[in-house]
Amino acid sequence: MTLEPGLVQRFAAIVGARHALTRAEDMHPYLAEPRGLFAGRAGLVLLPASTAQVSAILALASETRTAIVPQGGNTGLVGGQIPDGSGQQVVVCLRRMNRIREIDPASNTVTAEAGVVLQDLQAAAEAAGRLFPLALASQGSCQIGGNLSSNAGGTEVLAYGNARDLCLGLEVVLPDGRVLDDLRKLRKDNTGYDLRGLFIGAEGTLGIITAAVLRLFPLPAGRVVAWLGCASPQAALELYHRAAEKAGPALTAFELMNDTVLSFSLRHGSEKQPPLAGHHPWHVLMEYRSHESDAHARSALEEMLATFLEAGLLDDAAISQDVRQLRAFWALRENMSESQKHEGASLKHDISVPVARIPALIEATGRAVRRLEPAARIACFGHMGDGNLHYNISQPEGGDGRQFSERRHEFHRAVHDVVATMGGSFSAEHGIGQMKREELARTASPVSLELMSAIKRAFDPLGIMNPGKVLDVSTRR
Amino acid sequence: MTLEPGLVQRFAAIVGARHALTRAEDMHPYLAEPRGLFAGRAGLVLLPASTAQVSAILALASETRTAIVPQGGNTGLVGGQIPDGSGQQVVVCLRRMNRIREIDPASNTVTAEAGVVLQDLQAAAEAAGRLFPLALASQGSCQIGGNLSSNAGGTEVLAYGNARDLCLGLEVVLPDGRVLDDLRKLRKDNTGYDLRGLFIGAEGTLGIITAAVLRLFPLPAGRVVAWLGCASPQAALELYHRAAEKAGPALTAFELMNDTVLSFSLRHGSEKQPPLAGHHPWHVLMEYRSHESDAHARSALEEMLATFLEAGLLDDAAISQDVRQLRAFWALRENMSESQKHEGASLKHDISVPVARIPALIEATGRAVRRLEPAARIACFGHMGDGNLHYNISQPEGGDGRQFSERRHEFHRAVHDVVATMGGSFSAEHGIGQMKREELARTASPVSLELMSAIKRAFDPLGIMNPGKVLDVSTRR
Repeated sequence: MTLEPGLVQRFAAIVGARHALTRAEDMHPYLAEPRGLFAGRAGLVLLPASTAQVSAILALASETRTAIVPQGGNTGLVGGQIPDGSGQQVVVCLRRMNRIREIDPASNTVTAEAGVVLQDLQAAAEAAGRLFPLALASQGSCQIGGNLSSNAGGTEVLAYGNARDLCLGLEVVLPDGRVLDDLRKLRKDNTGYDLRGLFIGAEGTLGIITAAVLRLFPLPAGRVVAWLGCASPQAALELYHRAAEKAGPALTAFELMNDTVLSFSLRHGSEKQPPLAGHHPWHVLMEYRSHESDAHARSALEEMLATFLEAGLLDDAAISQDVRQLRAFWALRENMSESQKHEGASLKHDISVPVARIPALIEATGRAVRRLEPAARIACFGHMGDGNLHYNISQPEGGDGRQFSERRHEFHRAVHDVVATMGGSFSAEHGIGQMKREELARTASPVSLELMSAIKRAFDPLGIMNPGKVLDVSTRR
Repeated sequence: MTLEPGLVQRFAAIVGARHALTRAEDMHPYLAEPRGLFAGRAGLVLLPASTAQVSAILALASETRTAIVPQGGNTGLVGGQIPDGSGQQVVVCLRRMNRIREIDPASNTVTAEAGVVLQDLQAAAEAAGRLFPLALASQGSCQIGGNLSSNAGGTEVLAYGNARDLCLGLEVVLPDGRVLDDLRKLRKDNTGYDLRGLFIGAEGTLGIITAAVLRLFPLPAGRVVAWLGCASPQAALELYHRAAEKAGPALTAFELMNDTVLSFSLRHGSEKQPPLAGHHPWHVLMEYRSHESDAHARSALEEMLATFLEAGLLDDAAISQDVRQLRAFWALRENMSESQKHEGASLKHDISVPVARIPALIEATGRAVRRLEPAARIACFGHMGDGNLHYNISQPEGGDGRQFSERRHEFHRAVHDVVATMGGSFSAEHGIGQMKREELARTASPVSLELMSAIKRAFDPLGIMNPGKVLDVSTRR
């Protein structure tokens, strides 16, 4: 079954035939995500070039009760951007709306369309003498609309916040085609409910974000990173607190990694040089930024590390000597997720807890995982300063990957149950999409689910916006 | 007309007779705000001591269609916390729920009930070696529940954000008495829609916030403030950009004031010593914080000011020499609003624009005001770094205050119309309440008002929560 030809034609007329994809080979890149975990079918893929076109698409979708799946750079990890298998849904990819409408360094804002690639936005900000601090592994292909729709996090949340914190204004097309034009550049505006915060992180289930005003920051004068070896997550936590106290907001990253995942990165990634000579069970990558000078960043960090060494909190440390080495240290961290692929099947978790619970979390999940499979290899890394770990589990060396993958629900449940006992989250930054919808339904409070469903019904009474994602809401479709 | 005695008794039974106020003299402090701008009547004032009691109150209110007006420290400036004149509404003041449930410095969080006075929360954080950075003129009496319900701003937004940015988790009693328990201590949690952000800033129209988890920060090692005299708002803007670039997040305040309002503060406030010897048309108060040391804060600020002086950007500057002087400088700024009272009638505006537009805003509003009344005295001060000014207008010296006050709508309209042309907000931090409801209805986009109303109807279908505030929504009451 597929979409009725007359309807396909009406949708195609909005964007022009060239930008309405119907052939399987043209649609293919939009129907599966790169890892192959989620794949679907679609009646049509539309590539609108303007807010007016998106508005016309959604008006027609409402009129005809057609389900719409919004998509950005197709880098989402929970299947939020992938249509179902019916062939009845229409994918609307925003990639042609990739214009930076305005950079206003004097107001520290940039106004960008949803399809702007994150890395292009970073570059445009830098060219204007400003920093746009959202930074993710997928920044070369993810788009700002998707970043906002999933409330993306990344490596600089510690100092600058997540996508929601970085957004001042939005333009959103509502399910019936109306346009909410709230592209304001205001740091403070208490005129009514926080609609902006609601669309951000809604994963395209309440409307389509078509443009945004984002915050810019002054560029730091100096950046230095340190790689630290330490004995335990407890030692790393103590380091984190001391670093936060001594550095304040100059501490812009504090990443924790275990030795297993570092060895994967060294083995399979582009960086082959271990940052430290000896063997250490745990590693920390921390970044210090100064607005005074590079020399100040370096001396402040060196002084801090000297006191940590003296206090016996760390076993060894290396400070980046130049930009090349700074990038090399970061590359080791950034290659971790990718490197894991070469070690066979892996099960991934994107979990968060109150930061003080990180050591207990690692201890308890470790026990739970080893109970299920003593030879499982735990690849634990993440944004410790945010209380957020990417707690991944690689199959036993030489074992059967398929068999291991088939047990994923057991592992997910074991890890998420530990997280729940610690007041944590089973999706710190990746969202719900289709992958975690049942987990949300299983673990969220009924009151919270009812409020979310009430919002969904109020905003999208026909249920045409990304149905089946985030919530399972019965609607009047 | 008043509430039916049987109903009064049922409400009173929930909190106990002692905490259900019905006599006019007992209710009086809850029915009018200190400035006397808003006053109402009530059938009853309830002082619940627990979330369970608030829940029972709202369940009964829903059952009986009784309108509820939530109240904190009664310091709101837009009448959001004051009942109407019907005598049929019930005020629920949270002041007895003033327990700090937990301070967790290792997770950088504090869990506090809604009735905790802001200053007590600041003190408790400091006693635990942490900073809670929300700071307002009314901090000695305002309560954290009210701060959240109005998304309070204040003097430290520049570096730490407003109340919404500082909140990680909420406990909210919904209009039907159900309790949303979302008191999580997570910096990152992308599991569904941002309900928290929605209740924050809703001014008690969607439910009653009973407790919150708030973010704490490391205490800075040093704080220094500088008082700068400069020629114009344009010079101040240039100073702001240079200071932000050189200081980054160490710049924690950047306040702009004109000479008129400084003279009011010197004349009527506790601080009589002008910070600078000569006369300057515009003044800036900036604060620099260091996590290294007090000496570092001082030397960094001195170095910065030397370059500004050299570049001709400022006319004169004084740096606080000790804590006493730091407090004196801040007192001059903080007394401004209060001092204005002694200068007769005044009209107040809480406006924001993109920060680059501040000079143009001051120019255009000045022209508009002088056109209406050439002898009006403009008392302009505020959080320039946030693009937010408290743009107040005092009556002509020796003129008729009542006559001047009667023209308030003319002045409000003139100022707000200028703000609107610059993409600004007519309520940057004070909210809507009853005072600005019509202004919101007049200026907000229909789409935005419809979405807000849809949320209101979905959350409060009976319309019992703070009716007549923020929105004018027809409901099934």
